[in-house]
Amino acid sequence: MLQSRLLQGTLREAPAEAETVSHQLLLRSGLVRQVAAGIYTFLPLGRKVLRKAEQIVREEMERSGAQEVLLPMMQPAELWQQSGRYGVYGQELISLSDRHGREFALGPTHEEVITSLVAQEVSSYRRLPITLFQIGTKFRDERRPRYGLLRGREFVMKDAYSFDKDLDGLDRSYQTMYEAYHRIFTRCELRFRAVEADPGAIGGEGGTHEFMALAEIGEDTIAACNCCTYGANLELTGIAEGDRCPRCSEGTMQFFRGIELGHVFKLGTKYSEAMGAAFLDEKGVSRPVIMGCYGIGVSRLLSAVIEQHHDSDGIIWPLSLAPYQVHLIPVSVKDEQQMQIARDLYDRLRQAGADVLLDDRDERAGVKFKDSDLLGLPIRITIGKEAGQGKVEFSERSALSDKRQMDVEEAITEAIAVLEG
Amino acid sequence: MLQSRLLQGTLREAPAEAETVSHQLLLRSGLVRQVAAGIYTFLPLGRKVLRKAEQIVREEMERSGAQEVLLPMMQPAELWQQSGRYGVYGQELISLSDRHGREFALGPTHEEVITSLVAQEVSSYRRLPITLFQIGTKFRDERRPRYGLLRGREFVMKDAYSFDKDLDGLDRSYQTMYEAYHRIFTRCELRFRAVEADPGAIGGEGGTHEFMALAEIGEDTIAACNCCTYGANLELTGIAEGDRCPRCSEGTMQFFRGIELGHVFKLGTKYSEAMGAAFLDEKGVSRPVIMGCYGIGVSRLLSAVIEQHHDSDGIIWPLSLAPYQVHLIPVSVKDEQQMQIARDLYDRLRQAGADVLLDDRDERAGVKFKDSDLLGLPIRITIGKEAGQGKVEFSERSALSDKRQMDVEEAITEAIAVLEG
Repeated sequence: MLQSRLLQGTLREAPAEAETVSHQLLLRSGLVRQVAAGIYTFLPLGRKVLRKAEQIVREEMERSGAQEVLLPMMQPAELWQQSGRYGVYGQELISLSDRHGREFALGPTHEEVITSLVAQEVSSYRRLPITLFQIGTKFRDERRPRYGLLRGREFVMKDAYSFDKDLDGLDRSYQTMYEAYHRIFTRCELRFRAVEADPGAIGGEGGTHEFMALAEIGEDTIAACNCCTYGANLELTGIAEGDRCPRCSEGTMQFFRGIELGHVFKLGTKYSEAMGAAFLDEKGVSRPVIMGCYGIGVSRLLSAVIEQHHDSDGIIWPLSLAPYQVHLIPVSVKDEQQMQIARDLYDRLRQAGADVLLDDRDERAGVKFKDSDLLGLPIRITIGKEAGQGKVEFSERSALSDKRQMDVEEAITEAIAVLEG
Repeated sequence: MLQSRLLQGTLREAPAEAETVSHQLLLRSGLVRQVAAGIYTFLPLGRKVLRKAEQIVREEMERSGAQEVLLPMMQPAELWQQSGRYGVYGQELISLSDRHGREFALGPTHEEVITSLVAQEVSSYRRLPITLFQIGTKFRDERRPRYGLLRGREFVMKDAYSFDKDLDGLDRSYQTMYEAYHRIFTRCELRFRAVEADPGAIGGEGGTHEFMALAEIGEDTIAACNCCTYGANLELTGIAEGDRCPRCSEGTMQFFRGIELGHVFKLGTKYSEAMGAAFLDEKGVSRPVIMGCYGIGVSRLLSAVIEQHHDSDGIIWPLSLAPYQVHLIPVSVKDEQQMQIARDLYDRLRQAGADVLLDDRDERAGVKFKDSDLLGLPIRITIGKEAGQGKVEFSERSALSDKRQMDVEEAITEAIAVLEG
């Protein structure tokens, strides 16, 4: 992509309402713009990052055997009355009436719709287990939307639902999702912990886990063992810092702040009983399907990644999520030698499969470097006054002071080596 | 994908309310299910087709230089008041209030949001032209939703908007989109015509074209020349069948029914003036940006494709949109030789990059073939009683009577040849 064509306005200063680093950097680097409180437009760079996150989530869901569906956002109020949530969900549920006066809810989550679908489609144990997922927009009328994408009113989520014939099956489906979540957040290069949020609610060991990104701005406090993998949400336990770990009895508990990235939850039969999702078992006996639900805040994940991957100059994107992987910066676009090398690099790196952004703007070098620091693409190749000797400068955003002068050919080899990990 | 795991219930009979062939086949083949009037869930097979259509649209938009964004569905009513559309759009606009009583519209289209974004982000002629697009859900409270995905209340659209500094630029942006639309609908194997819908509204020749799929159930009548490419929407012209063509003067006009797939429209400055989207030209003079808008009904495209690609037994998917490309049918899952060949074909075709569905269900052969005809995957390989001699039966859904017995190796080669066109 040529940067002169890109719809991306960088801002020197973040608006005053942006309290967190991720919110400031999302706005300053031109990834998103606010349309109303908690409601955002994703500009081209933000859309690209979001698509990469969506694709990681989709790949790992499919690898785990889950099938993608698309459920409607406008949900008939009758479904919510049937589950008993319509009256109790509170003001966060956005409702509306159609031209005939029929009531709908804008889906904050899809248990009702998916359970009524499975009630229609699945009637025998032979069709179970099954896990369905979707990636789409959710609505929640937060009393106090804030922190950019962290607490929005319209946001992108992955929600998945498992359907099993017994509790052992639920344990397996839950474990499969738990492992998929580990793969997803690892690919996003997040430092995270899976913490028990409400241990032992339904069958198996542990009825729900929250996946928390470690970050100072996190709204939750996590207690985690320094020895085994045990962790718990502090709201739900009586643990004090320094206590001995209740699981391994060897480590001690430490406290962290965390951003909730996702959760896995054993639902049991709450929705299947309410929505009539039953199946005939091997003996011909009708039983309610046993459910689990599994959410990931895909748009908020961007905020968590930025909280963990930035420095005072801007974002430092992990390769897996960077909107472009390589930033080519000819210092002067009026210098034909520089531009020729830049265009050559652009074509050849793209042919090699790289996502490349070429800063062909007629701006001062200082402006270009500042914008490049802010945007935070993983690899930077600067084409400057050594262009006449066929030399360029290679660096990585994670260690900008480590600049290496090299030939064009060497820079291509080096870039591809970084991209291939 | 193993069919025994797939959430797909086929129906022998379509519900009575399904009046059109495409609506019947969408339901019977288990692609979609209705949640409320004009509101559908996409089951896994339907979601796959929709994603393939989205991907074709995305690739051709990007090839044309358009940049992808994501605009919110909840749009502040103030924006619609500013454009003057809030009061006049009518009952099709779905509105709602948030917990603080602020009014929002659920976007049926995004001119207001995108124009106010460009008003903020673009101030100089140097940033123009630019074309932005998104693929997402739209809402329109149709008085009479019908024909399945053809006239829905919640549906998937691609909308794009071009921003130019002068009318010549608009003509170029418009032409670029016009050509992208031709590529998109051609890749979807649709028979279509681009027809003048309201000639000469703003600058250039022809201010808007509709892209119409030829189909008996179409709600519009098209007049098209049998000699040149001229076509027009009958509602807007006084042409009679058999009239001489007003453009080439050689052909005669014929009438067709058509389903609107998309439109391209020269908007001019209506929204940029209302929303204050102005730029400074080369002389430093402030001028309103000149806009075009370009829509494609992505979910309704599925209906149009099915209307054109079916027979009395079911759908005949074009390769580009088929949920899976190859259907493997072992006649008896209890026959270990058949199953071994089927699993071998499954692994090897997938390794070759094919999308494969293996009907591993313990059903009678007649049921499997009926379901396979209905679902309409392009290539079918039946593994039956000749499996012992290493023979399978190869056919294409578009010509099922042309069955050829061949070795497993030959079937793989043949399938790959079909997939590579």
